[in-house]
Amino acid sequence: MRKPRVLVTSGDPGGVGPELILRALADPEIGGLAEFTVVGSPDGFRRDAAALGLPLPGIRPAGEASAVAVGRPSADGARAAVAAVRTATRLMAARDADALVTAPVSKQALRLGGYPWPGQTEMLADLCAARDLRVLLMAGPLRVVHVTAHRSLRDAIEAVTTASVLRTVELADDIGLRLLGRRPRIAVAGLNPHAGEHGILGDEDEAAIRPAVADARSRGINVTGPLSADTLFPRAAAGETDVVIAMYHDQGHIPVKLLGPDEGVAVTLGLPFLRMSPDHGAAFDIAGKGTARAGSMKAAMRAAAGAAGRGLLDADGAR
Amino acid sequence: MRKPRVLVTSGDPGGVGPELILRALADPEIGGLAEFTVVGSPDGFRRDAAALGLPLPGIRPAGEASAVAVGRPSADGARAAVAAVRTATRLMAARDADALVTAPVSKQALRLGGYPWPGQTEMLADLCAARDLRVLLMAGPLRVVHVTAHRSLRDAIEAVTTASVLRTVELADDIGLRLLGRRPRIAVAGLNPHAGEHGILGDEDEAAIRPAVADARSRGINVTGPLSADTLFPRAAAGETDVVIAMYHDQGHIPVKLLGPDEGVAVTLGLPFLRMSPDHGAAFDIAGKGTARAGSMKAAMRAAAGAAGRGLLDADGAR
Repeated sequence: MRKPRVLVTSGDPGGVGPELILRALADPEIGGLAEFTVVGSPDGFRRDAAALGLPLPGIRPAGEASAVAVGRPSADGARAAVAAVRTATRLMAARDADALVTAPVSKQALRLGGYPWPGQTEMLADLCAARDLRVLLMAGPLRVVHVTAHRSLRDAIEAVTTASVLRTVELADDIGLRLLGRRPRIAVAGLNPHAGEHGILGDEDEAAIRPAVADARSRGINVTGPLSADTLFPRAAAGETDVVIAMYHDQGHIPVKLLGPDEGVAVTLGLPFLRMSPDHGAAFDIAGKGTARAGSMKAAMRAAAGAAGRGLLDADGAR
Repeated sequence: MRKPRVLVTSGDPGGVGPELILRALADPEIGGLAEFTVVGSPDGFRRDAAALGLPLPGIRPAGEASAVAVGRPSADGARAAVAAVRTATRLMAARDADALVTAPVSKQALRLGGYPWPGQTEMLADLCAARDLRVLLMAGPLRVVHVTAHRSLRDAIEAVTTASVLRTVELADDIGLRLLGRRPRIAVAGLNPHAGEHGILGDEDEAAIRPAVADARSRGINVTGPLSADTLFPRAAAGETDVVIAMYHDQGHIPVKLLGPDEGVAVTLGLPFLRMSPDHGAAFDIAGKGTARAGSMKAAMRAAAGAAGRGLLDADGAR
């Protein structure tokens, strides 16, 4: 079997992205998992590899980083980051690779560059004409897919509908299968305390979430819920379930960041291809100092290689 | 200095309460911390101590447990539990003790007994004519006081006001001082993701929470916030802050149950006396089997003795 092919975009060359990529790929455990190709400015990667004394990986040229100031957000940095994502998206659309890992960009730099996207996920959604995405966060023993994320808690409650929960469960089932090689056990957290305690503490759990779980079960998905979130996460951390569905940002992010602070991976669900990213920003404050820790980047690469490889195994020979 | 005096109510004698109390008090580390007196049915405690081969502590008689069926909720069990709480409340009001620990009662048994309270906290509030209580949960490295708890998430958002947050911070400051013997460092979690990101993700953080924090600071309280909850809890767990203020049930309960599953203690704030309880229920399924684990009960007794002892130190000689 051939190795899975994974593309890795540079992210903002003024941030820690290129350093993290070079460090992670220099780890033989990571380098052996897939055929990794970085996407970005060859000049930039050459300069960084030389400065760090690390080997230069295979490069798909995109953008120009030699003039980018390291350690602060800039329009030049955003331009280079966007060029890498554009090129990578084209390559993914052409099935030139099996999974994509993106290094961090900067919200502030994107604004300086005049771009309309607040972050890379919105950029990818736009480039792929994809809608209704979800984010899976993985860290330590937890995998958590969020029904809603970056919106007010008030708006999040409104957005918890039978349709939105069902779509989240379906996307979780799909990515779980790719990550684990078997159908995942999915547990859905309630929105209200004690999952509403039979409607006494809010009606959304019975009215919106329970029907979505029943529908998903009728489609063969191994899912239970809604369950009281505070007792569900310890059980998930103990391995009793494979994927938790969280209703809103903090419900999922608090346990993930508590149990896996330095190795978080975000997976975007609903794009036409697999995309993983480390769960941190461009970290301009430590860029260029040679001190960045590649734990999250390595975890993202490991997950991308694993899921992409399983995609190859599962395929019917066409790929 | 005399030892602090701590009362311990039996809880529902059909549940694990009496067994947990006897086990905890038989631990020399716990027994030496205070002058503990149990409040409940002497016959019941005598029977349980004999069955478990454990010493009989000092008893303040209250209620009748010899007819209570062990292992299931019953009106008799609720009656005995309520009698113990009534007697203990009278003793606390008469300053006959410095702190109260309550063993668990059963919501279902209270209903069977025809009582109007869903739980012990509501019972105590009623008996003491106390209003606007708060709950501090402690486990592992975390202490979390909740602005709201057992209400729907929708209602919780409405209940996050400058006044309710300020009162919570003041109660947290007071109990922190008693628990730690110094003014606590308090951090207030935001309601919305990223604490609202300057109002982009909801306005409650700026409109309701920030003014409460400013007001509390002007009163000399060592408090910061609102802070993004997902990054705040790992920092609190690492000891960077003493008390976290959570806005709603799951925001505080998820990290507490994840980091301290078997040693949770709840402290009721706003009563006229110190009251601690183990963070679990009457556990009828394991009552009478001699297998209950007393971790939470011991932690509650330890906390009660510690805070009560400090109360004695702080007092001006009148007590």
